[in-house]
Amino acid sequence: MWNNNELTRTLGIRYPIIQAGMAGGTTTPELVAAVSNAGGLGTLGAGYMTADEMNETITKIKELTDRPFGVNLFIPEFPEHCDEKIDKANELLRPFREKLNVAEPQVGLYSTETFDKQLEVIIQQRVAVCSFTFGVPSKEVIQRLKQENIVVIGTATTVNEAIINEESGMNMVVVQGSEAGGHRGTFASPFTEAMIGTMSLVPQAADHVHIPVIAAGGIMDGRGVLAALTLGAQAVQMGTAFVTTVESGAKQQHIEAILTSTEDQTVVTSVFSGKPARGIQNEFSRELQPYEQSLPDYPVMNTLTTGIRGEAAKQNRPEWMHLWSGQSPRMSKKQTVNDLLANMVSQIDGIMHKR
Amino acid sequence: MWNNNELTRTLGIRYPIIQAGMAGGTTTPELVAAVSNAGGLGTLGAGYMTADEMNETITKIKELTDRPFGVNLFIPEFPEHCDEKIDKANELLRPFREKLNVAEPQVGLYSTETFDKQLEVIIQQRVAVCSFTFGVPSKEVIQRLKQENIVVIGTATTVNEAIINEESGMNMVVVQGSEAGGHRGTFASPFTEAMIGTMSLVPQAADHVHIPVIAAGGIMDGRGVLAALTLGAQAVQMGTAFVTTVESGAKQQHIEAILTSTEDQTVVTSVFSGKPARGIQNEFSRELQPYEQSLPDYPVMNTLTTGIRGEAAKQNRPEWMHLWSGQSPRMSKKQTVNDLLANMVSQIDGIMHKR
Repeated sequence: MWNNNELTRTLGIRYPIIQAGMAGGTTTPELVAAVSNAGGLGTLGAGYMTADEMNETITKIKELTDRPFGVNLFIPEFPEHCDEKIDKANELLRPFREKLNVAEPQVGLYSTETFDKQLEVIIQQRVAVCSFTFGVPSKEVIQRLKQENIVVIGTATTVNEAIINEESGMNMVVVQGSEAGGHRGTFASPFTEAMIGTMSLVPQAADHVHIPVIAAGGIMDGRGVLAALTLGAQAVQMGTAFVTTVESGAKQQHIEAILTSTEDQTVVTSVFSGKPARGIQNEFSRELQPYEQSLPDYPVMNTLTTGIRGEAAKQNRPEWMHLWSGQSPRMSKKQTVNDLLANMVSQIDGIMHKR
Repeated sequence: MWNNNELTRTLGIRYPIIQAGMAGGTTTPELVAAVSNAGGLGTLGAGYMTADEMNETITKIKELTDRPFGVNLFIPEFPEHCDEKIDKANELLRPFREKLNVAEPQVGLYSTETFDKQLEVIIQQRVAVCSFTFGVPSKEVIQRLKQENIVVIGTATTVNEAIINEESGMNMVVVQGSEAGGHRGTFASPFTEAMIGTMSLVPQAADHVHIPVIAAGGIMDGRGVLAALTLGAQAVQMGTAFVTTVESGAKQQHIEAILTSTEDQTVVTSVFSGKPARGIQNEFSRELQPYEQSLPDYPVMNTLTTGIRGEAAKQNRPEWMHLWSGQSPRMSKKQTVNDLLANMVSQIDGIMHKR
């Protein structure tokens, strides 16, 4: 059976389909619970949450499902605090702030405090799965989670990064192909060298690690799921396909942009957050692109643009919002999570039956 | 059966596996014939050949196989002849020419004469399949070939380009994902917008054209073939996997570079030919990359670097050669064409049997 393997047994899920832990409000308790209730693994994208927000949200998810679900965290980063770059960025962002009437934010200091507290919540709440993006936590953190019977999943964009995840003790690893929407998980290479297509990345990673590989990037339907399993993955992780579901908390303009875009309209840019991410090209990304190399690193740039992007959504200016999307927006649909999963499963059964 | 579909029946081949028509000497008569004899479709890469060379080579292939095979042609291009850009390029290339003792070539005028004569040879020789890269020929050319019962196959890198191929009358279309090695076939978009991963491109193209879609990019083994068919393709086209076969005419240094590279070591660059192509990063591509935007277009730049690359191979300087490769070099093997195909078929049978 296509849906019976080490990964589905370890996670206790019916279908090898993981909903990506997209940070920033998309992964509502309703979305996460609906995915887990439908037989996949829902994931709370807690990257930008405080520990308290995360704790409350996990409690809500538990009210909606008794199936396993995951929480995704960002590994903290400490870029050099460069005032010149911040001044330059603020100068470029001033016209947007003026049009939207948004104040210039203060860039604070970054610490591991939030991350440490998030980990405590995950342990206290006995969350089934904890996944990580933007690097690998310390071996101590990984061991601590594993001792609590929490399955730990890392993110890689190259074979080398997959091996680093395995060596650090991760139970499984998501390999993120270049098609994927949102932030690149790259942490051990220049990002340009780590733009490997899913068709290339999955089998090469599966050949070089022993832990289960989860394929991400460009997968939107049953064909993609079965293709990824054929390439050597034990599951898929899907983001964009869930952004447009009824249960998603994504902004309406974001959903609309995905539903009406084509495969050639996305771009990988770091102008929104300081870290490369794939989204639908718009005025903001076009205007700031020439200055990409001189902007502050993540998360400083993210702090500088958060107010603009939030207010742009409120004032219905999608041209200044981040519109994360993978390279398969033509396959997106507005539908319930249940329908999305049921359609995928029946499509897979149809393909298998014809053979 | 996975290998019985409209495409295999139309082409009269046993396996839906097409060897890419790589120009420049890789596709020897031995390679093309071995692929066709093993049940796939061999293809002569005639893009850089004169009509006479092509005619002779086709005759040799026919001595080695009575199975169908294809010939790939380049659609002629006529870039603006810019003396300033040529002077700048020659200045950048002088150090390489001096080290290799290569003369500066003359850039002649480009015409459709060779292309027209190539088409006549294809018709006279009753070649089974004629495929095209870098655009779409006139509808008259396509109709003429089809009247002679020659199957015509185009190349696309976006859904829109696949639709253009269908509307022009092509029987089938290769969709080339961003993983693919060698030249990008992009002709109707800026190439950066047409870097779509195979996992995304294949199903979206298959959903939008009625002619059979052939998947290219990142496919190296039976897993890739079956994954591509699952995504909606009726066949695959593979290049890099055939470069390292025993029958390949590729330079030894090129084969060695593929066999020892990893997925993160290729780069898409136009510094070799004036047209973006994926190959293994080396000194030549690194040194010229900063000037990429100011170099002459294809085929002018190709003319300017041909002598350097040829002499670099003779003098064993792979750091100055073009080392085309897709993003899956870890899966490359030195083996015969027969073994490559037999391994793929038994791998596919193994996967199907387990389900």
